[in-house]
Amino acid sequence: MLTIIKIGGNVVDNAEILMQVLKDFSEIKTPKILVHGGGKLADDLLKKLNIVPEKINGRRITDAQTLDIAVMVYAGLINKKITTQLQSFGCDAIGITGADLNILQAHKRIVKDIDYGFAGDIDIVNTKKLLKLLALSDAIVVAPITHDTQGQLLNTNADTITGTIAAALSAQKKVTIKYIFEKPGVLRDKDDDNSVIENISFADFEIGVANGTFSDGMIPKLQNAFDAKKAGVKEIFICGVESIFKTGGTKIGE
Amino acid sequence: MLTIIKIGGNVVDNAEILMQVLKDFSEIKTPKILVHGGGKLADDLLKKLNIVPEKINGRRITDAQTLDIAVMVYAGLINKKITTQLQSFGCDAIGITGADLNILQAHKRIVKDIDYGFAGDIDIVNTKKLLKLLALSDAIVVAPITHDTQGQLLNTNADTITGTIAAALSAQKKVTIKYIFEKPGVLRDKDDDNSVIENISFADFEIGVANGTFSDGMIPKLQNAFDAKKAGVKEIFICGVESIFKTGGTKIGE
Repeated sequence: MLTIIKIGGNVVDNAEILMQVLKDFSEIKTPKILVHGGGKLADDLLKKLNIVPEKINGRRITDAQTLDIAVMVYAGLINKKITTQLQSFGCDAIGITGADLNILQAHKRIVKDIDYGFAGDIDIVNTKKLLKLLALSDAIVVAPITHDTQGQLLNTNADTITGTIAAALSAQKKVTIKYIFEKPGVLRDKDDDNSVIENISFADFEIGVANGTFSDGMIPKLQNAFDAKKAGVKEIFICGVESIFKTGGTKIGE
Repeated sequence: MLTIIKIGGNVVDNAEILMQVLKDFSEIKTPKILVHGGGKLADDLLKKLNIVPEKINGRRITDAQTLDIAVMVYAGLINKKITTQLQSFGCDAIGITGADLNILQAHKRIVKDIDYGFAGDIDIVNTKKLLKLLALSDAIVVAPITHDTQGQLLNTNADTITGTIAAALSAQKKVTIKYIFEKPGVLRDKDDDNSVIENISFADFEIGVANGTFSDGMIPKLQNAFDAKKAGVKEIFICGVESIFKTGGTKIGE
């Protein structure tokens, strides 16, 4: 058994919610991994430094300056604040990036239509080292930074890291993923929090994309989740912070 | 056997020298730890953000904003750039702070005459976890950040971390420390690089402090080194980058 929780910017940005999420996370009994996103902090810092962050399809375009900021904020400030907070809850956590113990080996995204800059697409998850690190700790906290094994750090989407790690570990472990975000689940009507879809099949997803039910941000999130499901991840939920312990939210089906 | 190399700001700030130092470090055959300082990067960022860094006796006064910058730059940017660079040299490194696996447990420095802010004085080195992490990796890269085990990150001098880790591990290992800095060793005449003191005893140190041979920055560095020596560290050198492999520099005596 292994639980992977992914928290996005909305959780990271709210100190009170983050604290509650980390408390809940620290009490999960199985081995566990927390993957965190970035939040507004990186954007704020870019703004203060007069660097304009650019996004295409919800993904940041990472030039050299933006990468440095991402590494500082994600691998530095957020990752270490989460780690010390977990320690304060008695959870012996270790915070890492993909460069540490060579755990997430990636390549700089190949330029087709869009040059995403220093964005990393993962090639290899070093499951051997990841499992050894899990055995040494109560939890691993993963920042959304990978590397190319040649000395270049890369920016990688936290949802993608979550799905890819989960898929890689599914050969050895029964893995549950919970993608925690600002809504209680995937919604039929994005303006109605009571319209949570309890179970979603890949066919439902394709219909929802075709008829416009799912917005831009939700499509890659669901795609990631279905990719992970197809790769053998046992259970996957997209849900709100209240669902870390209990069931609820949207369960990803076949 | 265990080698601990400490590199300061002057090495971190110079990409070419840093690369050479990391190459040399990666080729050290014994288990090894690299402790790095901060350098100008944090000061530059503070300046760009219009935060004025304050120092007393060469030590930074760490307010909440300055701490965040220190964590971003030291634990984020510098630590992860070093880690990926070491990986590119085939050295399977992992970068940590004292919060990770609760390895460096500290308390916020008690206010006497000067309030150093979020400066951490180390209480406990978790040698058990440190040795397990060493067994899992080719090298541990330590950023000069500790924590109070209650959720607060703290800024801790890299020389102090080096000496304290070395002392704690000396019960189980023959430890060699090399404090790498911008001079070829401790100098008799600070303006003459050819005046390296090859061996220095604690009595020599006390005389040098009394007669003004040692400048402000050198005194805590030597004090750290002698503290480590008294705590059982086998061999200690204060030396230049050229001495990572060969002997040279100043050897700390009894």
